[in-house]
Amino acid sequence: MTLGDRYGVGPELVATLVSTVSLPSGVAGVVVGDPDVFTAGCAVAQRSKLATVASFDDVPPGWSFLPRPTAIPVTPLGRVSADAGREVLDTLTMLAKAARNGDIQGIVYAPLNKQAMKAAGHLAGDELEFLNIHLPAAGLTGEINILDRLWTSRVTSHVALGKVAGLITRQRVGAAINLLADALQRSGVHSPRLAVAALNPHAGEGGAFGTEEIDVLTPAIEDAHARGLDASGPIPSDTVFSRALGGAFDGVVTMFHDQGQIALKLIGLGKGVTLLAGFPVPIATPAHGTAYDKAGTGTARPDGLVAATRLVLTMMETP
Amino acid sequence: MTLGDRYGVGPELVATLVSTVSLPSGVAGVVVGDPDVFTAGCAVAQRSKLATVASFDDVPPGWSFLPRPTAIPVTPLGRVSADAGREVLDTLTMLAKAARNGDIQGIVYAPLNKQAMKAAGHLAGDELEFLNIHLPAAGLTGEINILDRLWTSRVTSHVALGKVAGLITRQRVGAAINLLADALQRSGVHSPRLAVAALNPHAGEGGAFGTEEIDVLTPAIEDAHARGLDASGPIPSDTVFSRALGGAFDGVVTMFHDQGQIALKLIGLGKGVTLLAGFPVPIATPAHGTAYDKAGTGTARPDGLVAATRLVLTMMETP
Repeated sequence: MTLGDRYGVGPELVATLVSTVSLPSGVAGVVVGDPDVFTAGCAVAQRSKLATVASFDDVPPGWSFLPRPTAIPVTPLGRVSADAGREVLDTLTMLAKAARNGDIQGIVYAPLNKQAMKAAGHLAGDELEFLNIHLPAAGLTGEINILDRLWTSRVTSHVALGKVAGLITRQRVGAAINLLADALQRSGVHSPRLAVAALNPHAGEGGAFGTEEIDVLTPAIEDAHARGLDASGPIPSDTVFSRALGGAFDGVVTMFHDQGQIALKLIGLGKGVTLLAGFPVPIATPAHGTAYDKAGTGTARPDGLVAATRLVLTMMETP
Repeated sequence: MTLGDRYGVGPELVATLVSTVSLPSGVAGVVVGDPDVFTAGCAVAQRSKLATVASFDDVPPGWSFLPRPTAIPVTPLGRVSADAGREVLDTLTMLAKAARNGDIQGIVYAPLNKQAMKAAGHLAGDELEFLNIHLPAAGLTGEINILDRLWTSRVTSHVALGKVAGLITRQRVGAAINLLADALQRSGVHSPRLAVAALNPHAGEGGAFGTEEIDVLTPAIEDAHARGLDASGPIPSDTVFSRALGGAFDGVVTMFHDQGQIALKLIGLGKGVTLLAGFPVPIATPAHGTAYDKAGTGTARPDGLVAATRLVLTMMETP
């Protein structure tokens, strides 16, 4: 577990988390970061510190702290800093190496700041892309957004809306279906019921406005059936989320960023989790950001970090 | 007020409405339709019938019924019928003429069915386009979606997602801002606070993925300021709706169909209202459809029709 961006709410949320969430019997949870930053976070959250360990070898069960001291100032909080961004990238690099070596079985990271990571020289500012370089995966990796029981994957993400339709291919839709099905299975949902959201309004109304449902989505859904997956759709995107929330589906494959994000953020941003799926170990983070305006006030709620931690623990336990 | 598609839930909802919603002092409300259909709707809803009138001349205050008998069968309910679609179009034509003549000051129509209207020969199957022909307006007309205090207009509607970006122009965005501002003002919100939703994820993140926010939306918002309107944005579409629901805005200008519809339908379809704005008289209908599966069961809720009626009454009263 990382402290995230040191000038955000991460350190105080981690301090609260390790005081309130017990680990399953035999599981060791290691918080990695600058000891001065964690001490400050514990003070904000009014929580006690953890016993320290020197490395990932021979860590005892329960929570402990692996110090990585730096010369970066601890305060002031609430600002974008290249130093903080560099620390985040260094810590992710170290954890990716530990995962490659089999030293750790899951990663939870507290909120990062993309601007800080960009300022530190990682121009994409995107942890998924960064981890793709440092933690090679056997197949496709991708971001899955989770809120309570609703899981969503995306065929496209940070691209202009005008380019979305051109990127909706049978192969890409199939990959997003697989990624979501696999992640759900790894979390213990053995036969996930998946819905594929339509691209066009009213699912194109029989081709009247857009033919991707006919030409691309339906064939991709048939491919998924041939692979033994339970996939429904294409379902108009203005009804698929309420049906999923009502329990009809375990996951929704969305076509573009805001299609799923409008729904998830309306339902409840604070509790949401982002899962980086497809890597050798489960990797999750709260859906919310660094919340610089709240950093140091002790008012940020740990719900997202708790949900991310529980998810990683569940995925570690699922055979 | 029309009964809508006779094989849907419209007739029973209208029967409930006129028994439960009182009109303001001096206002005459006239239900127009086949008397056999209204009688059947009153029986389903277990409500009494209304006194009949012969024309829009000298109608008394309160609710009354203007019969337009047909030879179309009253049952079975729950089906798409070209005859029912033709009746809907005939009734809209008659009301459009009455509005042109100044005989009526507002229109509420119960749910229609686009397939039935298409089967009756109105190939667009769209009441907005139909009314554009029969009830000429001075300026632009358009659909506004309303749920409780959240009003949304759209720059594009029933077009393929792949064509949306090409249709986002400064002039069209300005027209959608104006339409929403004008409708809110006509409903009594004197200085509406409008938000303009972004087209691209994260509002394009400074042009990194999509430049419409910079090239089109910001200039259109500046144009609105120059016209004295309170317009904010562009605001990422995955946060604008929760901010509006929290009270920050009276209305949201959306770029495409599902952007607003995902949000509105998640919050609550049943209570939603569709306003056809820009016409010489206010015209509204419930956001839900004919609900053929519920027709005749008496289980459909009149919330949407009640909200549509209240909206038209408010807009009639606003000077």
